[in-house]
Amino acid sequence: MAEYRLHCFRESGNAFKVAMMLDLCGADWEPVFVPFGTGLTRTPQWRAEVNPMGEAPVLEHGAERLSQSGVILDYLAGQTGRFGARDAAHGREIWRWILFDNHKFTSYYSMLRFQYGIQKTGETPVTEFLRGRVRAAWSVAEARLRECEFITGSEPTIADLSMAGYHYYDEATGIDRAAEFPAIERWAARIAALPGWRPPAVAMSQRGL
Amino acid sequence: MAEYRLHCFRESGNAFKVAMMLDLCGADWEPVFVPFGTGLTRTPQWRAEVNPMGEAPVLEHGAERLSQSGVILDYLAGQTGRFGARDAAHGREIWRWILFDNHKFTSYYSMLRFQYGIQKTGETPVTEFLRGRVRAAWSVAEARLRECEFITGSEPTIADLSMAGYHYYDEATGIDRAAEFPAIERWAARIAALPGWRPPAVAMSQRGL
Repeated sequence: MAEYRLHCFRESGNAFKVAMMLDLCGADWEPVFVPFGTGLTRTPQWRAEVNPMGEAPVLEHGAERLSQSGVILDYLAGQTGRFGARDAAHGREIWRWILFDNHKFTSYYSMLRFQYGIQKTGETPVTEFLRGRVRAAWSVAEARLRECEFITGSEPTIADLSMAGYHYYDEATGIDRAAEFPAIERWAARIAALPGWRPPAVAMSQRGL
Repeated sequence: MAEYRLHCFRESGNAFKVAMMLDLCGADWEPVFVPFGTGLTRTPQWRAEVNPMGEAPVLEHGAERLSQSGVILDYLAGQTGRFGARDAAHGREIWRWILFDNHKFTSYYSMLRFQYGIQKTGETPVTEFLRGRVRAAWSVAEARLRECEFITGSEPTIADLSMAGYHYYDEATGIDRAAEFPAIERWAARIAALPGWRPPAVAMSQRGL
């Protein structure tokens, strides 16, 4: 059995945040498939056995079973010594962006992608609302990434991996990312060029699936 | 000048998360008024001088200027030795709930309250969507708080203060909190009974306002 086991599915950008970290650290890890769209993660059994919050990803490492991608990323930074903070102030800056990410950056984007790009609801008042929230949050990151190579400075950290989790999926969102957010696009390409990086469908593929 | 200065406005539950912490720790602090509804926090000047993310709260402490309520709460737990983690595993549990809070718990609730209760949009597809997300997230916390006095166990932590930030406002949301989420209601009352607690309009009041 691999050292790390990640309960995930390839469509989940939140799971991919962690899969990227494991790949970029060269960790010994394997994905454990969570059936997407079956509602499995919302069942009482899965909540009891894997995660009461009813969400993927969940990381198993020895006796540890961790959920919330931000917690897992921070844990892995501690375990591997990679992509973490230089000092306390840098640590606060990393958490600031991880919180912003969870609150506004990938959270709205993932819902917009799910409704507009996967469920294919068409344009609705909800997709319009979500797209407005996405553009507001992305404008903050765009401004930052015009100044810096990575979100907290010249080196990538877990904050970048958290924020980049949904950038490598192609479903329609009604946003032309390359035209509207060019600095974000260049940043996502820089992350994808780091040694060890693999796209979601490769990193989170499982035998027989 | 007080030791801590909190840029806030009394209607902001995110600011109240920090105001509660400062009060419960008996800190020497003062609120600095951010005009609500004027769009001030979105202006280039405010972004440049106070917070590029365009959000309140912001905490000033000596040379430190911190944003994101979760980062500020964690910083204050370190400064005061109160409401923080017993050990690394407890720390991860606290962060797990703070991330859940930012992603799903108070985030959707605050938007629902803003649209339905403050802007008074009436019922729209967006308020219906938000209310569904609120109920899903609150059900996770309700189940947890049926088992525990506080969200990570028998003692309150910064995770409770983060999650409770919006419970002490009365605008309509279309959710009967006492009927639908009784364990959450009892938990919010336990927090409000802690020594030093003051309601938002008192804690974040300013002279002449």
